[in-house]
Amino acid sequence: MSEGAHQPLSEGIPVLGYGLGPIGLGVAALLAGRDGVTLVGAVDIDPDKIGTDLGLLHGGGKNGVRVTSEVPAAPPGGVAVHATGSGLVDVAPQLEELLDRGWNVVSTCEQLVHPWSVDAQVALRLDALAHDRERSVLGSGINPGYLMDTLVLMLTGACTAVRGVHVTRVVDTNARRIPLQVKAGVGLTREEFVRRARHGRLGHVGLRQSAHVVADRLGWRLDGYEERIEPVVAGEPTATGLGVIAPGDVIGQRQRVVATSGGRDVIQYDLEMSAGAEATDVIEIDGEPAVHQRIVGGVNGDVGTVAVIGNLVPVVADARPGLLTMADVVRMAAAVGLIAPPEAVAAR
Amino acid sequence: MSEGAHQPLSEGIPVLGYGLGPIGLGVAALLAGRDGVTLVGAVDIDPDKIGTDLGLLHGGGKNGVRVTSEVPAAPPGGVAVHATGSGLVDVAPQLEELLDRGWNVVSTCEQLVHPWSVDAQVALRLDALAHDRERSVLGSGINPGYLMDTLVLMLTGACTAVRGVHVTRVVDTNARRIPLQVKAGVGLTREEFVRRARHGRLGHVGLRQSAHVVADRLGWRLDGYEERIEPVVAGEPTATGLGVIAPGDVIGQRQRVVATSGGRDVIQYDLEMSAGAEATDVIEIDGEPAVHQRIVGGVNGDVGTVAVIGNLVPVVADARPGLLTMADVVRMAAAVGLIAPPEAVAAR
Repeated sequence: MSEGAHQPLSEGIPVLGYGLGPIGLGVAALLAGRDGVTLVGAVDIDPDKIGTDLGLLHGGGKNGVRVTSEVPAAPPGGVAVHATGSGLVDVAPQLEELLDRGWNVVSTCEQLVHPWSVDAQVALRLDALAHDRERSVLGSGINPGYLMDTLVLMLTGACTAVRGVHVTRVVDTNARRIPLQVKAGVGLTREEFVRRARHGRLGHVGLRQSAHVVADRLGWRLDGYEERIEPVVAGEPTATGLGVIAPGDVIGQRQRVVATSGGRDVIQYDLEMSAGAEATDVIEIDGEPAVHQRIVGGVNGDVGTVAVIGNLVPVVADARPGLLTMADVVRMAAAVGLIAPPEAVAAR
Repeated sequence: MSEGAHQPLSEGIPVLGYGLGPIGLGVAALLAGRDGVTLVGAVDIDPDKIGTDLGLLHGGGKNGVRVTSEVPAAPPGGVAVHATGSGLVDVAPQLEELLDRGWNVVSTCEQLVHPWSVDAQVALRLDALAHDRERSVLGSGINPGYLMDTLVLMLTGACTAVRGVHVTRVVDTNARRIPLQVKAGVGLTREEFVRRARHGRLGHVGLRQSAHVVADRLGWRLDGYEERIEPVVAGEPTATGLGVIAPGDVIGQRQRVVATSGGRDVIQYDLEMSAGAEATDVIEIDGEPAVHQRIVGGVNGDVGTVAVIGNLVPVVADARPGLLTMADVVRMAAAVGLIAPPEAVAAR
């Protein structure tokens, strides 16, 4: 909530929490302190949570909302905060049930940030259902959803032309939760890192989605996409949340994306997540004028994801029906005209 | 236009240029090179321009659009780019005529960025007319309109709470057009600067509007607003577009705004425009998490204004009817709920 002399609010948006892990509960805790929203329901599959008071789960006082296993019917204008998984195909049935029960949905699902680039069939089906039910569905988060896509588009809003964008995000894994440190490969040997990376068991999900959100909105049809992942290796003994890592072993990862359009490199992402790295977010826009933007210290992804999702609740409540992207939320970018929407691109 | 493999565009937005000074012609030149928009008319009061081909005026080839003194009737979905003056009351009759003739409007008028804080009567009348005609009206530009307001709101989108914002914009007047150097007081004596500032003949217009756009959207009711202007004085002989300035004379200005809500300083703006200053834009958000953002080299205001206005043409063509603010364009910010729109605040 923004502090200060607050506007009085006439009524609240009814919110359902769906998926009560750390992020889902974080959003619930945030919304519990805000005017203009009311938590009205909570859904989870964990037997230990079902029947419990939601307020107690998110660390506030009792709020009389009991966790259920079934999705309740939505009151008018209701928004479900969906926070269960990263994979589009896995969560699609959950999203369909929420729409069927009348909820608008804002979701942390990384692949839902640009579902057409993951599985166009599933995306088109979700879009059709959302239109049919006159509800909105949006995937977002700090990354993908905000830093490498929406903020980029916003910064191009002051440009007359854009030739390319390059985003560098450096995350100090020591400042983040342990599961993220594990995901980044901290503590592995080089060999184990390479083995896991080859099987897709390391690395951040969502860079491809960010690239598509940017490209669609700027009018670039991507015809090439390359993503590489490599270990960051300790040069000296390095303290981490998983203990001290010996020189030669892994303290994190670097991911690099290069996306091309018409034979040109138009999008480059460099994401480093490693122990003790100096956190920063840098967006460089090669355009007229060029923009060199830096967020000193970066944006903390754990707090940031909760914030982005929570801040989108009223946006989704008030949005057009259908499957949305963040380009619907931040309309301004360095492109003009009737840009083909993602569903039209997917249908080609 | 964003370069690369462009989406095919089915049809264009008809655009009218209204006011053909440097900015109006700059936007026309930008749009002439873009898919999805078609320049269909041009209006100016200058007898030397009336009857001339618009394409020749903006430095392109002939495009068959002749400058007229009368506003033509709008084709469906038409957008007028209005670029005549900074004062709301001065331009209101022009905006009303454009609405009456069926145009949506995007305007460079600084006070139109938040007209309710200038003259609520005029704002409410414009809003009513725009609703009646089912057209949209929006004031924007690089500043006010983008850097100190919309970009600030966007950055709060990753925050769970915001206690205050502080924006510092430093402009090197040597890199800008001569009229801006004159406006910043370059070449004046200290005494002359003070005299002119006292009569409101120096200083940037629009800081108050930016403050209100931010405050409305974050839910802060401003109960105090202070704006000061002081000269930047040469310490040594300084080269400027107006000649070498002697030590002790003025090479620019500093403007400072402090806005309060509920007794707290919630918004601080520092705007320096002086010869040889190191250009930068810094946004500091005191919130959770804190955000420290810097645009190295700043955003050039001349190119930037043309870009922002040009990029808003399709946004305005597709917006809800009524008098809009940039908070309608960038929906995301660190506040939730049914924030009172500016017209409701003005009507209290």
